[in-house]
Amino acid sequence: MELISPIDAVFLLAESREHPMHVGSLQLFETPEDAGPDYARVIHEKLLADTEFHPTFRKQPANWLGTPQLAWTQAEDIELAYHLRRSALPSPGRFDQLLELASELHSALLDRHRPLWEIHLVEGLSDGRFAIYSKMHHALIDGVAAQRLLQRTLTDDPAANEMRVPWNLPRARRAPEPSGSLFGGIARNLLSAANSAPAALRAARAALLQQQLTMPFDAPRSMFNVPIGGARRCAVRSWPLERVKQVKKATGTTVNDVVLAMSAGALREYLIEQHALPDKPLIAMVPISLRADDDTAETSGVKVGAILCNLGTDIADPIERLRVVSESMRRSKEVYNSLSPIQTMALSGLMLSPLALTFLPGMLSLANPPFNIVISNVPGPKDPQYWNGARLDASYPMSIPFDGQAVNITLTTNGDNLDFGLVGCRRSVPRLRSLLDHLENSLSDLEQAAV
Amino acid sequence: MELISPIDAVFLLAESREHPMHVGSLQLFETPEDAGPDYARVIHEKLLADTEFHPTFRKQPANWLGTPQLAWTQAEDIELAYHLRRSALPSPGRFDQLLELASELHSALLDRHRPLWEIHLVEGLSDGRFAIYSKMHHALIDGVAAQRLLQRTLTDDPAANEMRVPWNLPRARRAPEPSGSLFGGIARNLLSAANSAPAALRAARAALLQQQLTMPFDAPRSMFNVPIGGARRCAVRSWPLERVKQVKKATGTTVNDVVLAMSAGALREYLIEQHALPDKPLIAMVPISLRADDDTAETSGVKVGAILCNLGTDIADPIERLRVVSESMRRSKEVYNSLSPIQTMALSGLMLSPLALTFLPGMLSLANPPFNIVISNVPGPKDPQYWNGARLDASYPMSIPFDGQAVNITLTTNGDNLDFGLVGCRRSVPRLRSLLDHLENSLSDLEQAAV
Repeated sequence: MELISPIDAVFLLAESREHPMHVGSLQLFETPEDAGPDYARVIHEKLLADTEFHPTFRKQPANWLGTPQLAWTQAEDIELAYHLRRSALPSPGRFDQLLELASELHSALLDRHRPLWEIHLVEGLSDGRFAIYSKMHHALIDGVAAQRLLQRTLTDDPAANEMRVPWNLPRARRAPEPSGSLFGGIARNLLSAANSAPAALRAARAALLQQQLTMPFDAPRSMFNVPIGGARRCAVRSWPLERVKQVKKATGTTVNDVVLAMSAGALREYLIEQHALPDKPLIAMVPISLRADDDTAETSGVKVGAILCNLGTDIADPIERLRVVSESMRRSKEVYNSLSPIQTMALSGLMLSPLALTFLPGMLSLANPPFNIVISNVPGPKDPQYWNGARLDASYPMSIPFDGQAVNITLTTNGDNLDFGLVGCRRSVPRLRSLLDHLENSLSDLEQAAV
Repeated sequence: MELISPIDAVFLLAESREHPMHVGSLQLFETPEDAGPDYARVIHEKLLADTEFHPTFRKQPANWLGTPQLAWTQAEDIELAYHLRRSALPSPGRFDQLLELASELHSALLDRHRPLWEIHLVEGLSDGRFAIYSKMHHALIDGVAAQRLLQRTLTDDPAANEMRVPWNLPRARRAPEPSGSLFGGIARNLLSAANSAPAALRAARAALLQQQLTMPFDAPRSMFNVPIGGARRCAVRSWPLERVKQVKKATGTTVNDVVLAMSAGALREYLIEQHALPDKPLIAMVPISLRADDDTAETSGVKVGAILCNLGTDIADPIERLRVVSESMRRSKEVYNSLSPIQTMALSGLMLSPLALTFLPGMLSLANPPFNIVISNVPGPKDPQYWNGARLDASYPMSIPFDGQAVNITLTTNGDNLDFGLVGCRRSVPRLRSLLDHLENSLSDLEQAAV
């Protein structure tokens, strides 16, 4: 048995039927030319034979001190056919039917009586491609690490015919040997949790307040900052990275600035359409990775900081909006850099993942949300990727809406593309997919004005 | 707003992520000969156009006095495309793949932010048939009423081309006008709940104890009487009613006696296989309907009584086992008939649905389960049924396992067949589908010995 870190435990404690706390991913692959009609079945059977599991994929909440949120146990018998399933689209197999299926899968809770992950091989797309929807609990892995884990199943060699699976990747390096006995470790963890959690919460709160105080804005109330229901809707699309880079070059900003401004313009149009645009600009919470490049999935725990960004949604002009976003990001990073070491540590630990904020007293009252939306840009591979000869067309992250944050935008680089994954509460965020057209229009406006 | 009856509220209160409290049904239809390749899509689109909803299908838990378990509200905007969905089987579309899908759908919780029902049209069976998986929350409707409701969408006229939907059936009769004001009604309901619930619980407990005391047996501990996990597995098969009737005639018993003995023999073989056969015989809880024949879905509330039956699983001889079952049923009915009026009322209300028992103090301790398994025989139509020209081949009920009752057997008559639906906890009941072969062998043993 192993104690769950106090911060990972937050994701188990906070989860309810309305608030599943798993991160997801929807990958699209070109079926290889030599694939037979039984391709999906053959792959599935091959993968089912791989019954070695990395410890992370054996982790299951154990009852300890009467609650299932405090300790992990390592599952001994894993029914791989439960975790790795086949699904199919109804005819005619349109892309929006894939999104409906992904929304349904993303809405369902993981079974806590088993290791907290599922992978679904999806067939039946009319264009002949196949898809993989994966989900893992946030208590196991953060969104960035999950994307990295999936990337490690891929290769840039189209001819490689190894079928790597996320649950049994070649180890990048040895996990450090546990020092001392198991019970010594448990005792240390308990002490550390008992001593540091409230202090870390206080430090994180102070750091966030300082960040907020330094900013010349407050987040307005908006339709996104409401209690949410149990069902989700997702929307995904890819854009050529080159288009964003052209705007970046012409304006002297960063790729991330342009992506945020592109999102800001889309949100502005969406809110105008919904007759719900606040007078004051929306504030985005932008997670920044504090993970070193050589970190691997073996390194557990969430390593993200969070900075606040003025999205300038009150501004009609796209270039002016981009300037506000860029300047806001620059100043937020300065504030971040000026924090005391303990504040930085608190911010950079799990504490400042958006969910943990719900546990900071008074921070997520719906009347005064600390921010309106999470927009997250997760690094991805620069070259085209393959899995057993199947080319990866797209890799859409699917993150976690929660109470007070009804929609989430997460994107990642995939070769020459930027892949956007939007997930919203199905009840409070109507017509989520219209945001995709708004994103295209917003990028196009930036191009016309800048280039 | 309408108060939830204290007994229906039990099913909302008792529900957790590990214990979904919905009843399900898996119907199989022959696709009509004139159906085109787009049959499923065409049906789905036609059904989506039927946006009139019976009040039961608008009911949604409302927050009242701070809890969502006390009151119903009527949902105004219903996203029918959420409740009525299309699903497909992966290739090659075998029957066991349909069962995997049904198991997955039956494991997922209903969204409490919407009316508590879902219907899935399933295509992709290799034999050309199509399936409908439906689920409704037990707080809305009991298993018997749910089966009746689905039956009312059917007709015995193969040429009828009306597409009746469960959410908008022709009303069998007018619901009685509410007497007095809404708030008067709420106050009355509250008073009645406050006054009668503990008394009814006491009466139900006394009645069950009396039944138990009268019986010359206690339920043993068994592998079925354990805490359960969140995932389910289902198994279904049909048997010709005539085979059961032949055994009944030859032995002077009833159809229900034979069905119980058939189940008993299957459970005995399964438990022997699992090295888990208790020395003492398993005790089944057999719900008996107290619903008048002219009751309709409009009549809400669960109307079942419960009698205990000695399954004779300690007996190897099939006919001797049938005799024990038959005699046990006869004596239990006598006890039931001898109860005082208040005990009968308590037993026949929702109180004695197996779930409500979990709220009777001390009744469901795992050390001494009051019974080992629920076996339920739900009435069904005598003639072949059709839905818009599609012949109903089978209608498998899917009921609710819960803590201490890891497997459930429910069957129903469908024309010349008996359709068995088994649902088990996927973790604690391994190889559930082997029970189907044991059922066949058990019936076959009865035939050879009796006929």
